[in-house]
Amino acid sequence: MTAPDDPTLAELGEAGLIQRLAAFAAAGQLDDDAASLVLAGTLVVNTDLLVEGVHFSAATTDAFHVGWRAAAANLSDLAAMGCWEGLGVTVGLVAPASTPWSWVEQVYQGLTDCLAGHGGGVLLGGDCSGGVSRTLAVTALGMLPEAGGPIRRRDGRAGDILVCTGLHGLSRLGLAVLQQTLPVAEREGLDPGLVRRAVQAHRMPVPRFDVVRALQRCRPAGLPWRVGGTDSSDGLAAAAVAVAQASGCRAVLERTALPLHLAMTHLESAEPWCLTGGEDFELLLALEPAWAEALLREPLPDLRAVGRLVSAPSREGCLLCWEDGGEAGAEEPGFRHFGSGPQSP
Amino acid sequence: MTAPDDPTLAELGEAGLIQRLAAFAAAGQLDDDAASLVLAGTLVVNTDLLVEGVHFSAATTDAFHVGWRAAAANLSDLAAMGCWEGLGVTVGLVAPASTPWSWVEQVYQGLTDCLAGHGGGVLLGGDCSGGVSRTLAVTALGMLPEAGGPIRRRDGRAGDILVCTGLHGLSRLGLAVLQQTLPVAEREGLDPGLVRRAVQAHRMPVPRFDVVRALQRCRPAGLPWRVGGTDSSDGLAAAAVAVAQASGCRAVLERTALPLHLAMTHLESAEPWCLTGGEDFELLLALEPAWAEALLREPLPDLRAVGRLVSAPSREGCLLCWEDGGEAGAEEPGFRHFGSGPQSP
Repeated sequence: MTAPDDPTLAELGEAGLIQRLAAFAAAGQLDDDAASLVLAGTLVVNTDLLVEGVHFSAATTDAFHVGWRAAAANLSDLAAMGCWEGLGVTVGLVAPASTPWSWVEQVYQGLTDCLAGHGGGVLLGGDCSGGVSRTLAVTALGMLPEAGGPIRRRDGRAGDILVCTGLHGLSRLGLAVLQQTLPVAEREGLDPGLVRRAVQAHRMPVPRFDVVRALQRCRPAGLPWRVGGTDSSDGLAAAAVAVAQASGCRAVLERTALPLHLAMTHLESAEPWCLTGGEDFELLLALEPAWAEALLREPLPDLRAVGRLVSAPSREGCLLCWEDGGEAGAEEPGFRHFGSGPQSP
Repeated sequence: MTAPDDPTLAELGEAGLIQRLAAFAAAGQLDDDAASLVLAGTLVVNTDLLVEGVHFSAATTDAFHVGWRAAAANLSDLAAMGCWEGLGVTVGLVAPASTPWSWVEQVYQGLTDCLAGHGGGVLLGGDCSGGVSRTLAVTALGMLPEAGGPIRRRDGRAGDILVCTGLHGLSRLGLAVLQQTLPVAEREGLDPGLVRRAVQAHRMPVPRFDVVRALQRCRPAGLPWRVGGTDSSDGLAAAAVAVAQASGCRAVLERTALPLHLAMTHLESAEPWCLTGGEDFELLLALEPAWAEALLREPLPDLRAVGRLVSAPSREGCLLCWEDGGEAGAEEPGFRHFGSGPQSP
């Protein structure tokens, strides 16, 4: 028997569930068949999935953080397109009928806390269904600011500096800590501050709207808006390859400038996690040197130049190289969501 | 071993899958982190889930029709808000890694055929993931037409005529035919034309943008825009209750005017399927009598007046009654997506 104040979804029914979820949205927001918004300008729209057993497991991610990460992943894509904030999200929630209401409540709490705390907008609507695997399908909407411009993968040019907006590999380290898969010797020597930060990075990533605003603020006079970039949700290497490929360039990274936390550099996996760990939800931007320098002077922590774009010598050449000429980040990105990634049970 | 031209999703990888899916979108549409659209006016946005074992099963719905129904269900909600067409959809697709590409291809074919054939717009973007249950999370976007206005559940008034835009119970009959759950005596006597139409209604529902356009065309001069309504995806009874409740009224239905196919009336389940079968994706509109009469004169098949809204006598009274005073459609709607509905395996 369930506690009287914590019914299962089967006991609540769809109507009862939607009634409770309405508390997370503005009054009347869920009253109709769909949401409506009065807009003028360029709308950005993005859909991301978060699937239990693929993107998260109950062992490492409680309901609140499932909701937070679903919101943050989507908002990060809006930032990666050049938005300064979000208008809001719709949420499709699949959960077994035996799921207690408290699990769903915590998901929506995490999701709306992330929206409210990071300029993500409001809960606009959605759908709920029973199903075997807990799944969140979130669609985020945002507007391009009139004062700014788009960020596109294809807008890099040879000669651009690659600026990375934060440390990488932290989320992957946080996962290893939560899964207790670090070698004992490494685990025992870990800096406690690093551990807290890594777990935080894994559970509560933050969309970098602040950086996109700073980009506009620091743009050198006379320089037209042209910003290449993407977010690093699939890892820093995948982000660099994506920008290089779309821009018809090669990305050259400086091995000594990898955006690693200092207390993490001695870990055996530090470099691969930095390059391919994924889910740090930072931005990788390709900027003209003057604009890159101006951005690096902004009072934002952990921004750094990690490399540059150069002309691609041929169609056959590797897209991601080290400054000394070696091929970097050779691991194929993007397979994990259909293979056995680090999150698979 | 898989055929060389039909790899599994695990063999394709996420990058390979997205490359193939790009063929269903406009050139370059999937190149960035999100889609962007230049807009001015009132945007309508809606998310719906389609989960295997809950909303469909492989036994009754092949991949093409899974995609078609996912698109149609979403577009129907846009029509129910007053849109004349859709801008497009994003698609979140979850499928096991062992799924063959041909299944995914057929889903996107059905989805984009529905969009292209019924003014639904284009494929804007989305996300893919491995997972145990095949699931589609579709978000549809549309604009309210400048010449029209919104359709809202709360905009009904006592005295309004309830106009229903098509036959009901057909989709549920189609499901029973496909699942072979009709009593033998009933199955043998079924009109072959009705069977074809019912299966078609189940597999390939059509969003009623045509009716919303007609609403504008036939509006009596001088009458301000005020249209109560919703779509009947959860059944005609649930639609009537939703409009009545939101409008502070009771819905009174005429039992002799139920929108049933003539060749279906002798079935034992005809009336309950008409009222609560669901997934017919028609509209139920609450209109001033003059506007209702004008709409019923439009050259659209199967439109009919099915009842009216009356003042609610008290907060305790039933929301849905027959003309003769009895309580109608007593079955609780909306439970099925967390219970054992007709689609559960």
